[in-house]
Amino acid sequence: MSEHTVQYYETDKMGVTHHSNYIRWMEEARVEFLKKIGWDYAKLEELGIVSPVLSVACEYKIPTYFSEQILIDVKITDYKGVKLSLAYEMKNEKGEVVCTGTSKHAFLNTQGRPVRMKQEYPAFDETLRSLLSS
Amino acid sequence: MSEHTVQYYETDKMGVTHHSNYIRWMEEARVEFLKKIGWDYAKLEELGIVSPVLSVACEYKIPTYFSEQILIDVKITDYKGVKLSLAYEMKNEKGEVVCTGTSKHAFLNTQGRPVRMKQEYPAFDETLRSLLSS
Amino acid sequence: MSEHTVQYYETDKMGVTHHSNYIRWMEEARVEFLKKIGWDYAKLEELGIVSPVLSVACEYKIPTYFSEQILIDVKITDYKGVKLSLAYEMKNEKGEVVCTGTSKHAFLNTQGRPVRMKQEYPAFDETLRSLLSS
Amino acid sequence: MSEHTVQYYETDKMGVTHHSNYIRWMEEARVEFLKKIGWDYAKLEELGIVSPVLSVACEYKIPTYFSEQILIDVKITDYKGVKLSLAYEMKNEKGEVVCTGTSKHAFLNTQGRPVRMKQEYPAFDETLRSLLSS
Repeated sequence: MSEHTVQYYETDKMGVTHHSNYIRWMEEARVEFLKKIGWDYAKLEELGIVSPVLSVACEYKIPTYFSEQILIDVKITDYKGVKLSLAYEMKNEKGEVVCTGTSKHAFLNTQGRPVRMKQEYPAFDETLRSLLSS
Repeated sequence: MSEHTVQYYETDKMGVTHHSNYIRWMEEARVEFLKKIGWDYAKLEELGIVSPVLSVACEYKIPTYFSEQILIDVKITDYKGVKLSLAYEMKNEKGEVVCTGTSKHAFLNTQGRPVRMKQEYPAFDETLRSLLSS
Repeated sequence: MSEHTVQYYETDKMGVTHHSNYIRWMEEARVEFLKKIGWDYAKLEELGIVSPVLSVACEYKIPTYFSEQILIDVKITDYKGVKLSLAYEMKNEKGEVVCTGTSKHAFLNTQGRPVRMKQEYPAFDETLRSLLSS
Repeated sequence: MSEHTVQYYETDKMGVTHHSNYIRWMEEARVEFLKKIGWDYAKLEELGIVSPVLSVACEYKIPTYFSEQILIDVKITDYKGVKLSLAYEMKNEKGEVVCTGTSKHAFLNTQGRPVRMKQEYPAFDETLRSLLSS
């Protein structure tokens, strides 16, 4: 569970959070999620693993406003050793779901080739499999 | 067809365009598209129509780099009088598809109620229907 | 004292935080500062006070990196009843000053006219004067 | 002279361009300026020159609005072989000055050491000196 306070610079002339920022909040939540499960970006980069975003999607349910606190929940929805699919649920302070999203990621080595996760990073592979929502 | 030059401030530490910016380029292309078909945002706002984003999705095919020129093509993929679905295709200078995306929009009046497009804005309604890709 | 964690989307292709983000962090710190002294933005807006930015300046001392925690200190450096001048000092986790900045603000009513702070909001005026660094 | 159209995502809840974006527009104008004088970023990076921002400052004169076209003029105000100082003037379509700014830059090699411009890149050094506003 990650937390984001809506910043003034994230609002637009409609008076609400600009929709592009939710994509950034998904990244914030993903970064924290990986940190919590013991595989933060710094560690991945040291190991020479880069994890580009293959796709994102976002459904906007309820507008959010300057200074609101948003809670972001991250779940692994698919992982078979090559690609990682995540789902996000964002709630405002009233507990209303304001936005849901998904993202898909690859794991590449510094030459841009897919990492064989199970063989090369069995512990990371195991962690991801164990967290896959059933 | 809209054009965007990748800015230095749009890159990230991976050396490529940060994925959140494509969502913004879709907005840029959408704004230009509405202008070209004679119904720009200024006109819509004067009429008291707001058009919130209901959802976005983006598939990243090929990274883009600082100072590259990106061409963005917009198409109407669905419109039956209430919601508008758009599809985007972005190409780099070599003509490669770097990203495809979609977005969905509502048309609301200033009270936040759906606009009855056909009855209230028949000319706009007609234009959107005529541009629906078949 | 306000805190900001450098986000991945705030880095650029040089591998460091893009310089434009520090201007945003100054806003974050300013928003928290006003909240702490009991005059948050929500309260000001309710009272019909808007506080546009008249100028900003920023000196970059040391680069900052993804996932670093930055502490931001805000001080009032000038206030005589019309304009508010603030100074910012940002430190990384080692306690090094990474950036210093300043900003200047007006207080306007909803008609865009300067608010006579002392007469109309004596309590706010008093608070600002009392916090003026001597 | 560089041009920028205010984007929807650059506005904030006050209905105007968020002040942090002008810092980005200064970068856009700087990038174009260096390109026009024959020393674009790509060329500098090939030569192993990086040019970090040492400081920026911005004075906001008149708000700007979504879809306005802003013209940005760049001038060299100081250059003696080590640091480059630039000044920016931004005008709206009515020709009003909306914002003025300054920025200061160093030229470093890939080891982070100052480049001896006159000795190592005499042609670039000469160009910068010749454009220094007198």
